[in-house]
Amino acid sequence: MAVEFWFEFASTYSYPAAMRIEAAAAQHGVSIVWRPFLLGPIFKQEGWNDSPFNIYPAKGRYMWRDLARICADLELPLRKPSVFPRNGLLAARVACLHADAAWLPAFVRAVYRANFSRDQDISAVAVVTDCLQQAGQNPQTVLAATESPEAKEKLRQQTERAIQLGIFGAPSFVVNGELFWGNDRMESAFRWALTNPPRQPTIG
Amino acid sequence: MAVEFWFEFASTYSYPAAMRIEAAAAQHGVSIVWRPFLLGPIFKQEGWNDSPFNIYPAKGRYMWRDLARICADLELPLRKPSVFPRNGLLAARVACLHADAAWLPAFVRAVYRANFSRDQDISAVAVVTDCLQQAGQNPQTVLAATESPEAKEKLRQQTERAIQLGIFGAPSFVVNGELFWGNDRMESAFRWALTNPPRQPTIG
Repeated sequence: MAVEFWFEFASTYSYPAAMRIEAAAAQHGVSIVWRPFLLGPIFKQEGWNDSPFNIYPAKGRYMWRDLARICADLELPLRKPSVFPRNGLLAARVACLHADAAWLPAFVRAVYRANFSRDQDISAVAVVTDCLQQAGQNPQTVLAATESPEAKEKLRQQTERAIQLGIFGAPSFVVNGELFWGNDRMESAFRWALTNPPRQPTIG
Repeated sequence: MAVEFWFEFASTYSYPAAMRIEAAAAQHGVSIVWRPFLLGPIFKQEGWNDSPFNIYPAKGRYMWRDLARICADLELPLRKPSVFPRNGLLAARVACLHADAAWLPAFVRAVYRANFSRDQDISAVAVVTDCLQQAGQNPQTVLAATESPEAKEKLRQQTERAIQLGIFGAPSFVVNGELFWGNDRMESAFRWALTNPPRQPTIG
């Protein structure tokens, strides 16, 4: 059973998740489906016009420290973005249009590196262009396609689907409708996909 | 270095944490300091008059499912409390006054079982009485002591200390000022206590 990896380019915990998911999936012997989406519309439904990490300072301070520990453990470089959260709309449209492409994971990693290790503005065409080049693609061709109404509609529908699945944060993992939230639940999702499930949870 | 275990009797994820912490700590060779506190005053500072799991339904639905999976893995019984969150003030005053007592862990487990496996009203004197008896204590003596101004002040100060440490949820773990949040961070806190730390996280 494939594991759907739901990620948002502005999301801090999606960064370590995106960087480690392929190796972890290979280790567990599960396959991944890449599902970019936008958290903004979901947060708006909760009444938030900003990241909850900005709205709730204690939670935000903790998150940056926790993320630093996680990245140190993974030996991933981390530089706190000078703008947070950054607008990942353009990169998400690219990823949504090409979710099944062999080069998609390389593009996704390039965007996360730009945001969280290079402090680059991932909403800028120049930065997304660079990320596409890192993934071996022709940026002009790919970027032109994101301008179509179909490309915009595809990402809108994917975000709508996230809401229907009960997704409220990123990264999330979905296995046959079963939702797991957070980088730290990746392995639980993999185990669920492999055993589906070991013990059926019940709640009285 | 001892690990401070900050818990709140109404907190759902504190239930599996409290039930497994002693075995896990023994396995890692770390010692535990028990730190009951109240989340209510902390949530009020964030502008919440209820649990965020009630305020944000998608998050709440996910939490109950996630908790059911966690409890199934641990073979812990779970019954969704008919009232959530329950008022743990009296039990927290008891635990705060007797945090160092040898019987404290047994009492803590009894209160969590009452709330999350027996669906009992842990704010009721009769229920706390039963929990104290399960821990081998004389309920009358212990409960009388919780009425003193000192007992009330002690829990107030402990909750104030939680805020100073940056605590915003439960369970939390603190090692020499380093904060870890969530049942799923227990082992990270243990490793921090043992190695303090393996790699120093930095954020540019």
